[in-house]
Amino acid sequence: MDSLVVWIGLAGTVAFAVTAVLAVAPKGIDLFGATVMGVITAIGGGTLRDIIMEQPVFWAADVTFIWVAIGASVLAFWLQSLFTRREIYSLMLYVDALGVSLFAIQATHMTWAVGFAMPLGPVLMGVITAIGGGLIRDVLVGRPNLLMQRELYAIPVMFGCALYTVLLELLPDYKVLEAFCCTVFIFALRAAAIHWDLGVPGWLVTKPKVP
Amino acid sequence: MDSLVVWIGLAGTVAFAVTAVLAVAPKGIDLFGATVMGVITAIGGGTLRDIIMEQPVFWAADVTFIWVAIGASVLAFWLQSLFTRREIYSLMLYVDALGVSLFAIQATHMTWAVGFAMPLGPVLMGVITAIGGGLIRDVLVGRPNLLMQRELYAIPVMFGCALYTVLLELLPDYKVLEAFCCTVFIFALRAAAIHWDLGVPGWLVTKPKVP
Amino acid sequence: MDSLVVWIGLAGTVAFAVTAVLAVAPKGIDLFGATVMGVITAIGGGTLRDIIMEQPVFWAADVTFIWVAIGASVLAFWLQSLFTRREIYSLMLYVDALGVSLFAIQATHMTWAVGFAMPLGPVLMGVITAIGGGLIRDVLVGRPNLLMQRELYAIPVMFGCALYTVLLELLPDYKVLEAFCCTVFIFALRAAAIHWDLGVPGWLVTKPKVP
Repeated sequence: MDSLVVWIGLAGTVAFAVTAVLAVAPKGIDLFGATVMGVITAIGGGTLRDIIMEQPVFWAADVTFIWVAIGASVLAFWLQSLFTRREIYSLMLYVDALGVSLFAIQATHMTWAVGFAMPLGPVLMGVITAIGGGLIRDVLVGRPNLLMQRELYAIPVMFGCALYTVLLELLPDYKVLEAFCCTVFIFALRAAAIHWDLGVPGWLVTKPKVP
Repeated sequence: MDSLVVWIGLAGTVAFAVTAVLAVAPKGIDLFGATVMGVITAIGGGTLRDIIMEQPVFWAADVTFIWVAIGASVLAFWLQSLFTRREIYSLMLYVDALGVSLFAIQATHMTWAVGFAMPLGPVLMGVITAIGGGLIRDVLVGRPNLLMQRELYAIPVMFGCALYTVLLELLPDYKVLEAFCCTVFIFALRAAAIHWDLGVPGWLVTKPKVP
Repeated sequence: MDSLVVWIGLAGTVAFAVTAVLAVAPKGIDLFGATVMGVITAIGGGTLRDIIMEQPVFWAADVTFIWVAIGASVLAFWLQSLFTRREIYSLMLYVDALGVSLFAIQATHMTWAVGFAMPLGPVLMGVITAIGGGLIRDVLVGRPNLLMQRELYAIPVMFGCALYTVLLELLPDYKVLEAFCCTVFIFALRAAAIHWDLGVPGWLVTKPKVP
């Protein structure tokens, strides 16, 4: 079980870095810049979380995640034509969804375990961990970030982390089962959003003003 | 007195969140994104200050400010037509000015009390607390932030915090009176800037180059 | 020797602030905004490094660097026509390169000395210290940052910090000599890039897609 979690984490890191490089490549970027973006996307969210919670950044004790992100970024840079092939890119999106689900629930658990900013803290930290890296990347690249888009990305994470926090409070004896179910819950919502291209319904979105 | 400070703080938080949601709504944003922007604007500056000063983030011990920011953001999202009515929006601007004045002087006091980075620290932390949240929001939304505009927003804060720091050094026995006066000082300048639509005079602004 | 390091550090800080003000001036910015940008550019990278490493920000114990950055920013604002003169601006670029080299190697040394996130930490912190301030400035001003450009800026820093880390591990007895050589190494690469206007070769850059 533990080693499954590690493998999902590593696969998620690869997917974060690869999708990041593919997202910034059309802007015209060099290998170094692309790799920085891949690494920031992969570890930015968790780093933000650790800074806000005044904990050592998670990669300080073990830089494996950074090596994996660097490797995946370099590969994605050289093999763009491979990774943009529909079936591979699609696979990456699902692995990204798996990684996001896992990291969000892990962050919620960590935050709940230390009782940080209860009862909102575990949800906030889950969401920040899941989307923080992507937000920093989009700001650095100068493209609209996912808070400005109707794609269902952060919302499933929020619901999953909120559900997990409630379950932890009500039934603290079934942590592992609850973590598993909530990870699957987020992944299922994200997978559905990817597969059917679901977005936030129109009545929950403001009408943009044409300038 | 203490309870007055709490109430002004809460009212300011509401105004930050509401003006933030109204500022991002024209970009076309969903309820979740708008709420994130409202919360970031309301608590971002104080969070930055706490991170730089290596202190626990101010909302870790009491998440009331976040609940208030979430509630105000959701209300502002649904009742945009109400909050954009001239008299209500105008009221919000003045309450925002009141909140900014209070939080800036509080931050200056905190920073002076621990002697952080004297003598510049209290002014820097006052300004960061006042404008940090708005800067992060504008960067995430992709609109020009207030450092790029001629509106008098950060400058009154800077002068008020500098004045307060000088007074604290010279006459440390009258802290409360000085805090009150400097809060009123910032608020008066901001209110004047809002009422007469005052900006930085032209000779203090570089000429933008037409690309 | 020590006092030489201090002087290079101060000169570098002046160059960071001056080039920052000249970079943002064409956007149309007031004296306050320009000074904030100058200060952020000068101290932003080191501040990011200290936050990530959970250390007190380097300017908390001594605000001299901030005073110097404020002074240089104000001067650059008023004397733009002087500082944009070709020979002065060119001098600033080389002094900037000297400062970047020094600060990057100092950061690598600090990080190696505490054994943070070995073996990648010293390189990451060197690069973050060197380019962090400029990245924050470009994001705030809304212009493409150097990760999106082909100029050789971060890459020489990365190679110099990596080389220094390897040397520190292999021959820890010659710290000072190695630090000197690696600083010169970065500076020489940067100077060459400035003088011959060198960029990342085309085959290491993705083709931007015309939208």
